[in-house]
Order: sequence, then C-alpha cells, then structure tokens
Amino acid sequence: MIQAVSPTKWSASGGVRKIEFGADQPLLLSSGARIAPLTIAFETYGQLNADKSNAILVCHALTGDQYVASPNPITGRPAWWPRIVGPGLPIDTNRFFVICPNVLGGCMGTTGPSSSGPDGEPYGLAFPAFTVADMVRAQAMLLEALGVHSLFCVLGGSIGGMQALQWAAAYPKRVYACAAIATAARHSAQNIAFYEVGRQAIMADPDWRGGAYQAAGVRPLKGLAVARMAAHITYLSEGSLRRKFDRRLQDREAVSFGFDADFQVESYLRHQGQSFVDRFDANSYLYITRAVDYFDLGADFGGTLTQAFQGATTRFCVFSFSSDWHYPPTDNREIVRALIAAGCDASYVEVQTDKGHDAFLLEEHAFEQALTGFIDSAAASRGLPLP
Amino acid sequence: MIQAVSPTKWSASGGVRKIEFGADQPLLLSSGARIAPLTIAFETYGQLNADKSNAILVCHALTGDQYVASPNPITGRPAWWPRIVGPGLPIDTNRFFVICPNVLGGCMGTTGPSSSGPDGEPYGLAFPAFTVADMVRAQAMLLEALGVHSLFCVLGGSIGGMQALQWAAAYPKRVYACAAIATAARHSAQNIAFYEVGRQAIMADPDWRGGAYQAAGVRPLKGLAVARMAAHITYLSEGSLRRKFDRRLQDREAVSFGFDADFQVESYLRHQGQSFVDRFDANSYLYITRAVDYFDLGADFGGTLTQAFQGATTRFCVFSFSSDWHYPPTDNREIVRALIAAGCDASYVEVQTDKGHDAFLLEEHAFEQALTGFIDSAAASRGLPLP
Repeated sequence: MIQAVSPTKWSASGGVRKIEFGADQPLLLSSGARIAPLTIAFETYGQLNADKSNAILVCHALTGDQYVASPNPITGRPAWWPRIVGPGLPIDTNRFFVICPNVLGGCMGTTGPSSSGPDGEPYGLAFPAFTVADMVRAQAMLLEALGVHSLFCVLGGSIGGMQALQWAAAYPKRVYACAAIATAARHSAQNIAFYEVGRQAIMADPDWRGGAYQAAGVRPLKGLAVARMAAHITYLSEGSLRRKFDRRLQDREAVSFGFDADFQVESYLRHQGQSFVDRFDANSYLYITRAVDYFDLGADFGGTLTQAFQGATTRFCVFSFSSDWHYPPTDNREIVRALIAAGCDASYVEVQTDKGHDAFLLEEHAFEQALTGFIDSAAASRGLPLP
Repeated sequence: MIQAVSPTKWSASGGVRKIEFGADQPLLLSSGARIAPLTIAFETYGQLNADKSNAILVCHALTGDQYVASPNPITGRPAWWPRIVGPGLPIDTNRFFVICPNVLGGCMGTTGPSSSGPDGEPYGLAFPAFTVADMVRAQAMLLEALGVHSLFCVLGGSIGGMQALQWAAAYPKRVYACAAIATAARHSAQNIAFYEVGRQAIMADPDWRGGAYQAAGVRPLKGLAVARMAAHITYLSEGSLRRKFDRRLQDREAVSFGFDADFQVESYLRHQGQSFVDRFDANSYLYITRAVDYFDLGADFGGTLTQAFQGATTRFCVFSFSSDWHYPPTDNREIVRALIAAGCDASYVEVQTDKGHDAFLLEEHAFEQALTGFIDSAAASRGLPLP
C-alpha cells in the first residue's frame, strides 16, 4: 500500500529519509521484470504550498545522491549543488518545495543491486536491469505517495537531464517546466564505449566475484577506482586539465623515472578514484551506466525525438557548456531542434566555459543567471511568488 | 664491440632480425642508468645506395613494431603501414633503404622489461625507466652499427613522430628531412591522464604480480585489455564511432537487459582489448607510456621548443588530422610555429578527416599525396632518384 506521508512524518534514520512500497506495489520495469519491495530514499527542502503547485524535482547524475542541498550524512560530503538549490538561490527553497530522490539502482538508500532482494540476500547480478524510464517511473511513485501530482519544474544535469527529458516526454501534463542541463537524448557510441571500459575494469577485478562480492565480504575497489578515473577524464575538458595541471610535477623537482604519481594530474586522478570507492557501490555503477547506455528517447517514442515531445505544453530550457565533450553542445542542440520541431516552448543556453561537462556542478555565473531567469519567468507565468 | 653488419649478413631467427650490443657498449639513459647488453630488433626494406644517402628511418607508434612493410612473423599480423612503405609507395623501397627498429622497451625483440637482465632473470620492474630521447639514442647505435651515418629522412606517426622530432633536435646534422605525423612536442595533461588510467588498470590486475608475472607464469591479461580499450577510444573520433557503430546492436534485435556486448561498439572494443593482449607485453606498455608522459622536447632543450630546432637545416613537414583528439591539430601547429620561429624550412598539412588519430594508419589519400610530395621534393633536392 502506498503510504501517504506528510513532511512532518518523515523520519530520518541515520539521516536517510525513505519511503517503502510493498509487495503489492511493484515497480514494473521496461524489461518486463518487476521490483518489489521497493524503497526510495529522498530528501526535500522547503514547503509544499496549499495548492501543491510549487514542487520541483531535482534528478541527480550518475554518481550523485539525494543530498542536493544538505550534507550527505553517510559520506559526510557537502551538498552537491550548493550554488543552485537553497534559500535565495536559483532553485529557491524559500519559494519552492524541492524533492530529490536517490535514483533507482543507487546506493544511498534507494533499492539497488546492493539491497536485499525478496529472499533476504543481496541482489548482486540478480537485480533486474533497468532504464532511465524506469528511474522516472520510480520517481513518479514517490511523488504520488507524497501527494505531489504535478511538478512546477523538473531539472537535472547529465543523466539527471535525461531523467528530466523522460519526465516531460512520459508525463507531459504533469510537468510545467523542464530544464535539461549538459545532457543528451541519446547516449553516443563514444559514451557507451567509455562506460564499457569502466564496466570491464570492475568486472576484471577478482574481488567483483561475478557481482556477489557482498556475500564474500569484499569489494572490487581497484576496478571501481579505474572505472572512475576513466570516466572522470571525460567530465573535464582538455583545456581545464591543462589550466589546472598541465605537466606540473607533484611534490617533486624532477620526474622519478618510475611509476609514482610524478605529475599532478596523476595524483589528482588517483585521488578521484580512491575517494569514489569509499562512497559508491560497484554494481550500482554497472547498472546505472547500463541504463544510460540504453537511453534513446526518440527510439522509445516511435523513432524520432520530435514525436517524444509532440504536443507538450511544458516550457523547456536546454543548457549546455561549450567545452563539454561528454554531452557536447551538439547533443544538446539536437534536443532543442526536436523540441522546436514538436512545436514546444523551448529555449537554449550555451555557456562559454573551459570547465567541461562538470561545469554544471561548478561556479558558472552565466549558467546560474540563465537558470534563474528561466525558473522565475516560469514561476511568474504559473502565478508562483517571485523573490 | 659494435658489429659492422651488412645486409647480406642479417640473420632472421624466427623472422626477427637483431643486433646485439655487449656489456662494453651500454646504452646510457636519461635517468643516468644504463642498459647492457642491449638487443635491437629491426627490419629493413630496399637497398642502401653507394654513398649511403638514401636511408629512411621509420619510427613506430606505442604498440607498433618493426614490421612496417612486411608481415610480423611472431603475431602473423600484416604490415602496419602497407599504404605508405613499399615498392612504388610514398616511402618507395625501390629507391630508399628503409630501416624500422622495434622501440627500446618494446616486446618484439628489442630489449625491454620482458627481456632477461644481466642476472639471467626477466627484468620486470627492475628495467630502468627510459625516455623518448633514450629510444632515439638506441636507434642511433643501431644505425652506426649498420654503417648508416646520416638519414635522408626520419618519420613516424604518434609517438613515432615524437621520435622523429627528437632525432631532428638531437642530431640535426644527420637528418636531411623529417616528417612528424599526428604527434606533439609535449604530451598533454589529458594524455598523461589516459595513460595513467591504463597503467592503473594493469597494476590493479593481481596477475601483474608487482611486475614479476613472468616468473609466476601468468600475465595481467584483463588489466592490459582494459588499458587498451581505454586508449583505443582516444585513437578514434566521436564522429567515426558514430559513423561506424552509432547505437547499432550486435547480433540481436533488442537489448539484453544485461551486461553482454549489446552494442556493436562494445563488441568492437572488447575485441580490440582481447586481440591486443595476444601480442603485447604489459610491462612494455607501462614503460613506453611512461616514456611518452615524460616527453617535453622544449623543456629538454633549454625551455622552449624553438631552441630545440634553432639552426637546423633539416626540412620538416608536420601532418595532422582534423578529428585527431589524441594529438590534436593544435599540438601539431605548435610544432610548426616553433620550427618557423627557429628559422627552419617547415611545412604543415592538416588533413580533413573524421578518422581521428588512427587516420595516419588508414586510407587517407590527401595524407598520402602530401607525404609523397614532401619526400619526392626532398629527394630531388638531395639528388636522389625520383619515381
């Protein structure tokens, strides 16, 4: 039974707020499989107004979590979007009710491959493969349970942007505005290739144990670190790597003629790999990357992206970053082209920056200003308060 | 003692021609270490003319070998530059005497970490780290032993191009012409990062055994395959991956909802990884990538690249490929700028192609035509026969 939960009733066990859907409320997946029971961990900020018209759903990226505007109590890491979501910020929690769920298959409280299945054992590879559409279907279950029947806005960056687009395509009547940031409507061959390298690195680690590492009391830390290192390079531009590190040496005057981290960029990458394995589950990485590989919104809606948005009254804004080569401007412009062709209200902002894909998480005034304008304009149109 | 070897004396043990330098002829390395004995495996094509003025040195890339124009007898793979080197081709073996050595640290006969050291045991990580300058110094020893005191031309693509530039900078009087193809005078932070991912993948494999896998009778096949997969993506452009594979499925009508190679690009990458481990040594991969990380020609010649080429009378031509993002046109243009600033005779050809870095190994008529023009013009100037 779906529990109706009011904000005052949310419990925070160890700082993780959750809602559970029982065996009678399975999540039906694109593959035909189903997941039950299903737990969705989520965080909220601000207050839902009386007519429930001020809800904003924030969808997190591959390795993000629900702690968009507050510290993660499990990892101790700070809020991941501190310049975007909060009081007086572009997503103003004084005016909006912000919901951020941990994604399906994740490892911060929402059911995923590290969760216990119906038999009480960790799923491991018995967890069913899912899609971005399934992530969104799970989020829709959460919103229904919270009594939020429509969204003022859905937004996200990277694969969060894919979820935002999926929301607008699957539930056009329930989404007033949609901000898709540094994303794509179809994951490219190059991106599939990079994700496959990461998966192979994880699966090559003998501590992966065919996915059953939890039962063995081990974790494929080395493989997961390599996967993260490879992916992390794609989140930064060549120019930003040159600006931040170039060929500067790490704590030494000359190269070591060996395999230490002679260069700052090596030291930085190793740190990225090491800190990642402390906070992320390897099987979650496999499953979520697979969901993203499978993302091709146009193919899912009759073959063209335009059809996915035909007739939608949602207001769209697509944001991209000039030096992003993970989801480059061309991918984002393709979304805009399809939206325009579908007759939608669509704007496009391309921010000039050398920060690459990760720019959406960093200080980028032009992005913040444009996002603020889009949100406030939509709020005015919707009759919601302005700052 | 350096042996004077004439072409008729070269023996082909298992198809591998070698020359050995004894304990009294050590190779002095940039690190201060030395290697002795030193074996250099090489291949030659064509005949050295009477005044020894028609020698061309071809330098191979990271995972190449000496079999530039003939099948590799060890791996059975075909010649790696069949459109460039051979009778009637741009590097015309009817007119030129072509020498192609296996690089220092390689695994096709030249001394490397898989060779036995002075104690009779495989070097493993006891092999001294070396640089591109050391590779070139070893090649110079080979040429002296062959009685070739100057080169009509030195050329190579990728890290072969680095060796060619190093030749021109280190031995300006001995190089009449130099063709540097799809290369850089300094390895970028992004490229160091990708190589570091590959090294970490190898060293994460428990079968690497701290580099001593030969003694244990194992090989870090999985780690080496991951390293190759990651690197291979950087050799292709996003556009060529889209053209060749896009999101097409491999031998199936629908995705598997699992971790099989659903997509053609995954299947292709896995094949690249698997076929690579059959022919390459993991420690050679570590050492050669490290040599390339260390490559910064300007830094080695007083701080600026211009100084490296000051006063050189060598004729240069630099070739780059528009979609190469491993050694992008900007890296190649930087070489040309320094050459011009040094007062050198330098030309630049940027070939429009979507084939990425690997374009220099593939069918590219514009490249072949331009290389032919450069070689033949230099040959005419040098008084060598034309086709």
